[in-house]
Amino acid sequence: MEALLSALRELLGSAHVLTPDADDLSAYEQDWRKRGRGRALAVLRPASTPQVAAVVKLCALAKASGQAVSIVPQGGNTGLVLGSIPDASGAQIVLSLSRMNQVRQIDAANAAITVEAGCLLAHVQQAADDAGLLFPLSLAAEGTCTIGGNLGTNAGGTQVLRYGNTRDLCLGIEWVNAAGEVVQGLSGLRKDNTGYDLRHLLIGSEGTLGIITAATLKLFPKPVARVTAWAQVPGLAAAVQLLGLAQAQLASGLTGFELMNAFSLDVVMKQSPQLRVPFASAVRAGDACFVLLELSDFESEAHARQRFEALVETALERGCIEDAVIAESIAQSKAMWHLRESIPMAQAQEGPNIKHDISLPISHIPEFCEQTDTLLRKAIPHIRLVNFGHLGDGNLHYNVQCPPGASAAAFLVEHEGHINTAVYEQVAKFGGSFSAEHGVGQLKVAELSRYKSPAALAAMQSIKQAMDPQNLFNPGRVLAL
Amino acid sequence: MEALLSALRELLGSAHVLTPDADDLSAYEQDWRKRGRGRALAVLRPASTPQVAAVVKLCALAKASGQAVSIVPQGGNTGLVLGSIPDASGAQIVLSLSRMNQVRQIDAANAAITVEAGCLLAHVQQAADDAGLLFPLSLAAEGTCTIGGNLGTNAGGTQVLRYGNTRDLCLGIEWVNAAGEVVQGLSGLRKDNTGYDLRHLLIGSEGTLGIITAATLKLFPKPVARVTAWAQVPGLAAAVQLLGLAQAQLASGLTGFELMNAFSLDVVMKQSPQLRVPFASAVRAGDACFVLLELSDFESEAHARQRFEALVETALERGCIEDAVIAESIAQSKAMWHLRESIPMAQAQEGPNIKHDISLPISHIPEFCEQTDTLLRKAIPHIRLVNFGHLGDGNLHYNVQCPPGASAAAFLVEHEGHINTAVYEQVAKFGGSFSAEHGVGQLKVAELSRYKSPAALAAMQSIKQAMDPQNLFNPGRVLAL
Repeated sequence: MEALLSALRELLGSAHVLTPDADDLSAYEQDWRKRGRGRALAVLRPASTPQVAAVVKLCALAKASGQAVSIVPQGGNTGLVLGSIPDASGAQIVLSLSRMNQVRQIDAANAAITVEAGCLLAHVQQAADDAGLLFPLSLAAEGTCTIGGNLGTNAGGTQVLRYGNTRDLCLGIEWVNAAGEVVQGLSGLRKDNTGYDLRHLLIGSEGTLGIITAATLKLFPKPVARVTAWAQVPGLAAAVQLLGLAQAQLASGLTGFELMNAFSLDVVMKQSPQLRVPFASAVRAGDACFVLLELSDFESEAHARQRFEALVETALERGCIEDAVIAESIAQSKAMWHLRESIPMAQAQEGPNIKHDISLPISHIPEFCEQTDTLLRKAIPHIRLVNFGHLGDGNLHYNVQCPPGASAAAFLVEHEGHINTAVYEQVAKFGGSFSAEHGVGQLKVAELSRYKSPAALAAMQSIKQAMDPQNLFNPGRVLAL
Repeated sequence: MEALLSALRELLGSAHVLTPDADDLSAYEQDWRKRGRGRALAVLRPASTPQVAAVVKLCALAKASGQAVSIVPQGGNTGLVLGSIPDASGAQIVLSLSRMNQVRQIDAANAAITVEAGCLLAHVQQAADDAGLLFPLSLAAEGTCTIGGNLGTNAGGTQVLRYGNTRDLCLGIEWVNAAGEVVQGLSGLRKDNTGYDLRHLLIGSEGTLGIITAATLKLFPKPVARVTAWAQVPGLAAAVQLLGLAQAQLASGLTGFELMNAFSLDVVMKQSPQLRVPFASAVRAGDACFVLLELSDFESEAHARQRFEALVETALERGCIEDAVIAESIAQSKAMWHLRESIPMAQAQEGPNIKHDISLPISHIPEFCEQTDTLLRKAIPHIRLVNFGHLGDGNLHYNVQCPPGASAAAFLVEHEGHINTAVYEQVAKFGGSFSAEHGVGQLKVAELSRYKSPAALAAMQSIKQAMDPQNLFNPGRVLAL
C-alpha cells in the first residue's frame, strides 16, 4: 500500500492525504449517530474532478495488482446508515469531497444551479436565495451535509410533499466511473430522452456505482409567504383525511404536512419545558395526534391565512380537526417548526430508542399503526412509541422507546433485533419500505436482501458487476457483495 | 421458427398469435408517421403478465438454441422514432400489450392508480377524473397511445412544466426481465430508498432492458379552473422573460407555457381559415412570437383571471408583452389550445418538413434560434421555420419547411441530412438535447452515439449487456448493438 499512498501524495499533495499514523481521522471514521467506527487506510481530500478521476485510476490499478483497497466516498458524514464511513479492515480509502465545494454556475433564467458535490446543502440554499430563487431541499443536517451526499442517498426532508426527493431536484450529474473516467452528464435540460437515465441510477446508489462530483439542480420561484398551522386531530385516520382535504384545497401550496403523535410532543414538553406546545393538555392526555401544515403562498401572507382559515373551517365541519391554530407571524411559524424539529433531540435525551425510517401507502398508515402498536405493546408491555414524520409523503419515523424507568441500553440489546423484524414484517405486509429516506448503507443490507424481490436484487447485482467489476466503490454497502 | 410459433399458439391461443400469412399486420408493422414499415415474424397479444413472462421465456430459449428471434414491445404504436415497429428481417416478434388494458386499482387516499401497460392514456385520465383526481400526462396521441409506451419513452406533452415527464409521474413498475421473470416493483410509495432505482432505469429505455407490464402512477388534486391567456411578445428573449415573470407570480399554477412563432400560426390561418387567430395582423407581419399560457387554479375561475390580469399588467409595463387576451370562458380556453394543437396538422398540410424535437437550457433559446435561423437561411435562402413547442420545458419543435413553391419531397431528399447535422451541432453547442421527448428508437441511434460522451455510452452498453445478455429486447433501438 505504501506505493499507492505515495502516488496519492504526489497527486494531491501530502496535506490532502491524511493517514492514521499522522492525523486524527475520527471525524471521517466515526458516523454521525455514533453507531459505528471504522478504520481508514487514508482520507483523501481532492480539490477537483480530474483529481477524483486520477485517484480512482490509481486505486483501480492497485486493486488490479492484487491489493485489497477500495473507496468510500464521503460528504458531510451525516448519514444514518453507516454508508460513508470505512469498515474495520483498515484497507478502505475515504474519499472526502469536502474541498470541492464551489458553486460553478447559477442560471436564473433557466432556474438552475451547478454545484460541486462537496457544497454544503445550506450553501446551495443560500446561493439560490441570493439569486431570488428557491432550492427547496431542506433537512435537519443541512448546515453540515453536502449535496453529493444528498444525491448519493436521495435525501428526503420536509419539503418532499411539494418538491419531491433529491432525485426530483436534479437535472444532471458529473461523475467518475470505476475506470477513473469522468462521465459528463451535467445538464440544464428539463426534457432529454436520449438513452438510459444514468443520473437516476447513480442517485440513491450510495456511492457504489460511481462518484458524483458535481450536479445541476432545479431552482424554483420563491414563495411570498410561508405560513404554518398546527392542528389537533382525533387520530391517524383523521390526519389522513385532513391531508386529502388540504391537498384538494391548497394543491401545491401545501409544502409541509408533518405528523406528531402525542408521546413525541410529550417528550418535547418534558425535555424542553420552556417551549410552548399548543394543546398541551391534549398532548398529556395522549389520545390525539397533531399535524403541522405549511402553506407556501405566492400572493401574500394574508391570502395564505385566508386559505388556511377556509381549510380549518371545512376540516372542523367534517370532524377531522378538533382544534387548530394558524401562525400569525413568521416568528410563530418558526416556533411551530422548532417544536417539530425538537422531537429527535428530545427523544435522544429521553434515552436511545429503536428507530425505523419507514414509508407506507398513505391510505394504509392508520391500520398499519393500529396493528403494529398493538402487536408491539402486547410483546413488551408499557413500551412507548415516538411516532412522527412526513405524513404527506407516507414517511414515518416510527421509533420504539423502552418502558418508563427501564434501562434503554439493556432494552436495545434485548429487543432491537426482534422489534426491527416485527416492524419490517408489518411494513412489508402493507406494501411499505424499510428505508424511506435514509438509504441502506451497511446497516440495512440484510433487510434489502430479505425484502427486495430476488429478480430485483439480481438486476441490481448485475448492474453493480457491470459498472464496478472490481468492486472498488463502497463494497458491502447496499449489496452484500 | 415453427416450433416457437406453435409453442406461442399453445400459450396464448391461436387468435392471439398473428402471422403475416394469415393476418393483416400493417397496423403493427407500419409506424404512426409512415416513415418506415417492418416485417414481423408474428404479433403476439398476451392477456396477462404471466403470459408476457412465458412468451419471453420461450423466445429466450429459442434464441439460446440459435434462432435469430427478438422481441419488439408495442403499445399504441404512436411513437415517432421507429422504436416499436419490427425491422425488415422478418425475425422480430411484436409483443403488443394492447389486451392488457385494465385499471387494477385506484387508491384515492394515497392519490395513486395502478394500471396495466396497455391501458390507453385517455382511459387513465378518465379513471383518475372519475375518482375526483387528476392524472396530468397529456399529449396529442392520448386517445391511442398506451401508458406502457408513455413509460417506455418517458413521454412529455403539455403539462411537463408543472407535473414533469412521465417518469416523474410513476411510483413503481412491474416488468418482465430478459430471463422471463416478473420483477415486482409496483409501489404506492412517495419515498423508498432501498437500492438502485430500477424503475427509472426501465422508464425511457424504450423496451430494450425489459418489458413494463403495469405501473402505479401518481394522481393529483383536480384544479377548480383552468384558464388560458394568449400573448403577443416582441421576440424570443421577451418570451423567456415572460416565462420567468409568470413563474414568479403564478408558481405551480402555471401549467402551460407554449411558444409559437409567427410562421407556425400563419400556416394554421392558411390551412384552417375558419379559425380565429388572435393578433392576426401581427401573425401575418411575421416578427412577433406568441405564447399560450395556462393557469390551473384551486380557488375559482375569477381568481385565475385576476392573477392573469396582474401578470399581464406587469408584463406590459416591462415590455415583454405587446398585447394579450385572457380567455373569458372554458370555450375560449379550449379554442386557444385548439389553435396550438392545430400546428402539427397545418404544417403537414403545408407539406412534409424536417422535424427536430430538441431541448435547450431555456436561457439559451433566444440565442440558439437567432444563430440557427440565420445559419439555415444563409445555407438555403427562403426556407421557412415552423418553430413552436413547450418553451416552459425548453422544448422546441424546430421544423424546417422548404421555400415557398419548392417541392417538399425533393427538398427533404436533398437537405434533410445536412440540416439535421447543422441543427444538432447547434443544439450540442448550446448544451441541448437532440431528442427532448420523442426518444431515440431506430431513427436517432446515430445521433446518440455521436452526441453522448463515450463514457456514458459505454455505461449504457454495459448495462444493456448485463440486463439483456442475449440482446432479446428491441435490438438496435437506442444502442447500435
